[in-house]
Amino acid sequence: MLPTTPLVPPFALTRASHVSLAVTDLGRSRDFYRDVIGLVVTEESEDAVYLRGLEESAHHSLVLERADEPRALRVGLRVRTEDDIAAAERCFAARGIEHRRVERPHQGATLQFRDPVGTHLELTASMDLVPRKMQRFDEFVAGAPQRLDHFQVVTHDVQAATDFWTGLGMRMSEYTAKDGTDELWGSWMEVKGNTHDLVFTNGRGPRLHHFAYTVPDASALLHAADVAGALGVGDEIDRGPGRHGISNALFLYLRDPDQHRVELFTTHYQFIDLEDEPIRWDVSDARRAQLWGLPASRRWFFEASPFPGEPVREPLLHASPATLEDYLGVH
Amino acid sequence: MLPTTPLVPPFALTRASHVSLAVTDLGRSRDFYRDVIGLVVTEESEDAVYLRGLEESAHHSLVLERADEPRALRVGLRVRTEDDIAAAERCFAARGIEHRRVERPHQGATLQFRDPVGTHLELTASMDLVPRKMQRFDEFVAGAPQRLDHFQVVTHDVQAATDFWTGLGMRMSEYTAKDGTDELWGSWMEVKGNTHDLVFTNGRGPRLHHFAYTVPDASALLHAADVAGALGVGDEIDRGPGRHGISNALFLYLRDPDQHRVELFTTHYQFIDLEDEPIRWDVSDARRAQLWGLPASRRWFFEASPFPGEPVREPLLHASPATLEDYLGVH
Amino acid sequence: MLPTTPLVPPFALTRASHVSLAVTDLGRSRDFYRDVIGLVVTEESEDAVYLRGLEESAHHSLVLERADEPRALRVGLRVRTEDDIAAAERCFAARGIEHRRVERPHQGATLQFRDPVGTHLELTASMDLVPRKMQRFDEFVAGAPQRLDHFQVVTHDVQAATDFWTGLGMRMSEYTAKDGTDELWGSWMEVKGNTHDLVFTNGRGPRLHHFAYTVPDASALLHAADVAGALGVGDEIDRGPGRHGISNALFLYLRDPDQHRVELFTTHYQFIDLEDEPIRWDVSDARRAQLWGLPASRRWFFEASPFPGEPVREPLLHASPATLEDYLGVH
Amino acid sequence: MLPTTPLVPPFALTRASHVSLAVTDLGRSRDFYRDVIGLVVTEESEDAVYLRGLEESAHHSLVLERADEPRALRVGLRVRTEDDIAAAERCFAARGIEHRRVERPHQGATLQFRDPVGTHLELTASMDLVPRKMQRFDEFVAGAPQRLDHFQVVTHDVQAATDFWTGLGMRMSEYTAKDGTDELWGSWMEVKGNTHDLVFTNGRGPRLHHFAYTVPDASALLHAADVAGALGVGDEIDRGPGRHGISNALFLYLRDPDQHRVELFTTHYQFIDLEDEPIRWDVSDARRAQLWGLPASRRWFFEASPFPGEPVREPLLHASPATLEDYLGVH
Repeated sequence: MLPTTPLVPPFALTRASHVSLAVTDLGRSRDFYRDVIGLVVTEESEDAVYLRGLEESAHHSLVLERADEPRALRVGLRVRTEDDIAAAERCFAARGIEHRRVERPHQGATLQFRDPVGTHLELTASMDLVPRKMQRFDEFVAGAPQRLDHFQVVTHDVQAATDFWTGLGMRMSEYTAKDGTDELWGSWMEVKGNTHDLVFTNGRGPRLHHFAYTVPDASALLHAADVAGALGVGDEIDRGPGRHGISNALFLYLRDPDQHRVELFTTHYQFIDLEDEPIRWDVSDARRAQLWGLPASRRWFFEASPFPGEPVREPLLHASPATLEDYLGVH
Repeated sequence: MLPTTPLVPPFALTRASHVSLAVTDLGRSRDFYRDVIGLVVTEESEDAVYLRGLEESAHHSLVLERADEPRALRVGLRVRTEDDIAAAERCFAARGIEHRRVERPHQGATLQFRDPVGTHLELTASMDLVPRKMQRFDEFVAGAPQRLDHFQVVTHDVQAATDFWTGLGMRMSEYTAKDGTDELWGSWMEVKGNTHDLVFTNGRGPRLHHFAYTVPDASALLHAADVAGALGVGDEIDRGPGRHGISNALFLYLRDPDQHRVELFTTHYQFIDLEDEPIRWDVSDARRAQLWGLPASRRWFFEASPFPGEPVREPLLHASPATLEDYLGVH
Repeated sequence: MLPTTPLVPPFALTRASHVSLAVTDLGRSRDFYRDVIGLVVTEESEDAVYLRGLEESAHHSLVLERADEPRALRVGLRVRTEDDIAAAERCFAARGIEHRRVERPHQGATLQFRDPVGTHLELTASMDLVPRKMQRFDEFVAGAPQRLDHFQVVTHDVQAATDFWTGLGMRMSEYTAKDGTDELWGSWMEVKGNTHDLVFTNGRGPRLHHFAYTVPDASALLHAADVAGALGVGDEIDRGPGRHGISNALFLYLRDPDQHRVELFTTHYQFIDLEDEPIRWDVSDARRAQLWGLPASRRWFFEASPFPGEPVREPLLHASPATLEDYLGVH
Repeated sequence: MLPTTPLVPPFALTRASHVSLAVTDLGRSRDFYRDVIGLVVTEESEDAVYLRGLEESAHHSLVLERADEPRALRVGLRVRTEDDIAAAERCFAARGIEHRRVERPHQGATLQFRDPVGTHLELTASMDLVPRKMQRFDEFVAGAPQRLDHFQVVTHDVQAATDFWTGLGMRMSEYTAKDGTDELWGSWMEVKGNTHDLVFTNGRGPRLHHFAYTVPDASALLHAADVAGALGVGDEIDRGPGRHGISNALFLYLRDPDQHRVELFTTHYQFIDLEDEPIRWDVSDARRAQLWGLPASRRWFFEASPFPGEPVREPLLHASPATLEDYLGVH
């Protein structure tokens, strides 16, 4: 069932902001994100590395934290002001959603919570400001990622996730549904006026499927692939380059040393006007996933990063996405 | 003096929307925007041609109207809902700004007005929906412009324009000021979360300096230049390709058959967080205008499209931008 | 065993020139090469369509001929002058290679022959001249292919093919060999100073694996893929985009309506100096085939176009290239 | 008068090879070519720096030599074998052209000479081999120049230069001539099958106007411009980006710290077939110089690097190229 987004949401979400990952070899992961992806290292310590895209003035959009096991720790969203943090607390309290204020380095007031499908999140209203590097073209490396754009989460209940997040002010821009029904299999939702900030797709979840940085153009995306090859991790491209039907992204997916997945992409479109209807794709329409080329492999479809301590649940809807293995007849 | 943007503006502006131009040869202008720029013709009649960018679902972002004299007719902005049109009426009435509701083809409720520096504008909350063409790659032509992004207006009083528009909710992302002062010479203001929707620069005004479409990448921008050359209008590129310091745009400016100016550009950055401060550029810093290459010529600096019946006033601030002619020592 | 190229060959080969294909639906194939690939139609009749790349001044580099069965008809090479045709006749006569002079429309003196591994070929010294279209940027479509560059032929005996063609003046630029030996599995040979004009790889042959056009850049290559998707033949991309280790090509392979295969590529390198040694790749080195991303599928490895009436022979060397199916089966 | 190229030249020229420049600050010049252009430093000593393009297997294509005054020292061409060096000696002796064998580091047999218009040149048959870096994408910087492609020399007598070089086997691909005549003002000549290796244009000479490296695509070319801007030498772009009519190059010209000029370009075309006629451009046709955008400034037209001790002569033909200054003066 398609959701409704209230004109006046309970608090003002503004954008996808940052992600924290537990990684098992901090130096190796830093090298990957700096040298193969092209992020800027803002700061590093014994236990954490903070990175950002080239145009970002916020202190970090990616936090790597030293750990024994690889996990997706938190998906971070921005709210407009500290008042919105307070409003979020009231909203969550009213809805019975557990939450807590925390201190997070280089962030203003921060509120952590789990959404109804178990995604681990945090909201913050501000971060330390650092210089935008977008005109230090001499420092551009690999994909020259400009900014964090969105997250994709695998969930056992896309409908519940969609209802929750649209209720908080996100708008659905595109969705996949079982043919002939409005049974949601995937939900692309945005709050910042482009194609999406947060995506939920059907599967064993909650697990973080990927986080995505926008790159300046197709050449940057291909250069990242070439650099990955040159640095010996060309096998860690687990999909692409290709063109999604959904969102129109030209995409490249890579796996980091702990198998967390990062997407580089370009050419999303603008989604601002209220009269714009979400674009529907039948699950059976292979063009939703790619306009050309081969389907994604099982590795892309079924591997994702769990959140710490969060049980992974079987999906309510039983689907078998058409994988590359199916396409090729491999068993 | 730097302006303040209220957290709750009188009504909800959402984005730069459309521009109407008076042109003297409708067919020739249509051909230019379709074949040299690459816009899609949504509809044409005896007296008007409606065009849009490839990803736009709104009926038009450019309206060409048959006329005896070339003029910039109106700069169009979107508001969120029809209620915002009503709120705008109340706001303008309270401030003594003349305005009127009009019927405009393919637009919902539309409110026309002149801002305090004489710019002719209209607000609308909706347009007829048409298919997005962004995945009809087989129909891409020339620059493959994706969407209208912003307007630049020359004004005699940048401070007044800035105060008015920030008062309506626009935020300043960058500005130029006389060295050592906050005397505003140029003001870049946004409402949709990227670098700007509306720009005012110091000069004889009000006149429309240009309107701008975003293109997918540098290759598209160069292809537009090559197509302009192939179609015999290579002389009508009056600046670029180059890289602005302000906004980080890779730009190309072209003049249409009536000498209206259109910009194609790529790689603006995101500007959403409230803690982001506007970037200041001294007027004397040539890098504000281009990070490399030659300055713009007088033609680019001093030619612009007047609005019908609107007197052009001498600027309050007397400045001489450093032109290409100055740079080369030509007199 | 590595071959030796004589400093003074028996006649002067100059470049890969053209290919003739038997197609079962002339209009459909023309549409594919014109609209999806972007070739220029020089001329068409009831029974044949002549096409060329945008920069080519020669009448055709691709000839489609109406037929009941899809076949690769002939691979065409240029020689320097008509005297070289006569010299080729003498050379073939001396070596006992069947050959015959034929009249071919829009070609000068033309000599047809079969090489020792059964490839059907023709040599010509000249063609009708037509305008180069490389500056008609307004007519560029899809991949904007600039010129035919090379052919790849599957053969049962790479060593024999290599010996023959290097004896005629081609130089080997790269090769694949069984690990630890010089047993040739693939041979890349050039005569025009870039990476290759003619390639032989081990397999059931003779069959034409593909012919290749060079495109201006990566954006053109991706645009071809996007256009293929938009025109409903996105499934006919049977490999890529990707980066070959051999030749450094950024590649995209497409299948035409009869399943003939065409490659679009960019960024070969120059190979002119006599001291340059051919680059060796072990067959077991997956990087020879792609520097990043997934291996090619069986479809790409094993499907190719036979020549009319020419028996297909089992390869002398028994190899199993590591296919995508293999790769996925073990993961 | 158009020249004739003999089918069998006196010796086998194969390609533009290398250039030696006298520079006044070796470190600063090295930094420029490495960081702003993107060349690879093969070797450096107290007195010289050797650089090459990313795909080049030859030891150097650019030699910087420490000196008190900036000069173009030598333009280098390759011949096929050492026998061709000997043949060149015989040829020059017969024609009364002074020449001498010299030892040059990392080069095989090398023959230095002055051509009839005073250009300082050297021929060599071989160089030390070094690894091609074209697949070290992680080391690509700025324009990622792949290989040296051609030289342009200003001469007082284009006809004499053209006659000499075509007599040695170069073929004219394009030329400029006074309208309605075959009086040569510029001569583009090739020997390696693309658009040109050596260009002579009319003016005060002999002086080296520029040497040119090919880049992978338009994005690389623009990235070089952006890097130049970021490194504070954006003013040293003295022309472009733009598209030449002659040669179809998308071009960018930069001046090094001593004001030697280097071109980065892409998309030349193939010129191999003997039936191809040189393309003629009238001097009055502005499209010969650029298909779109502004003309080049006097700085580009009139500044060039003299050869040591070589008197600069006034041109036989008196021409005033239409400069940017002229263009702006009349507008």
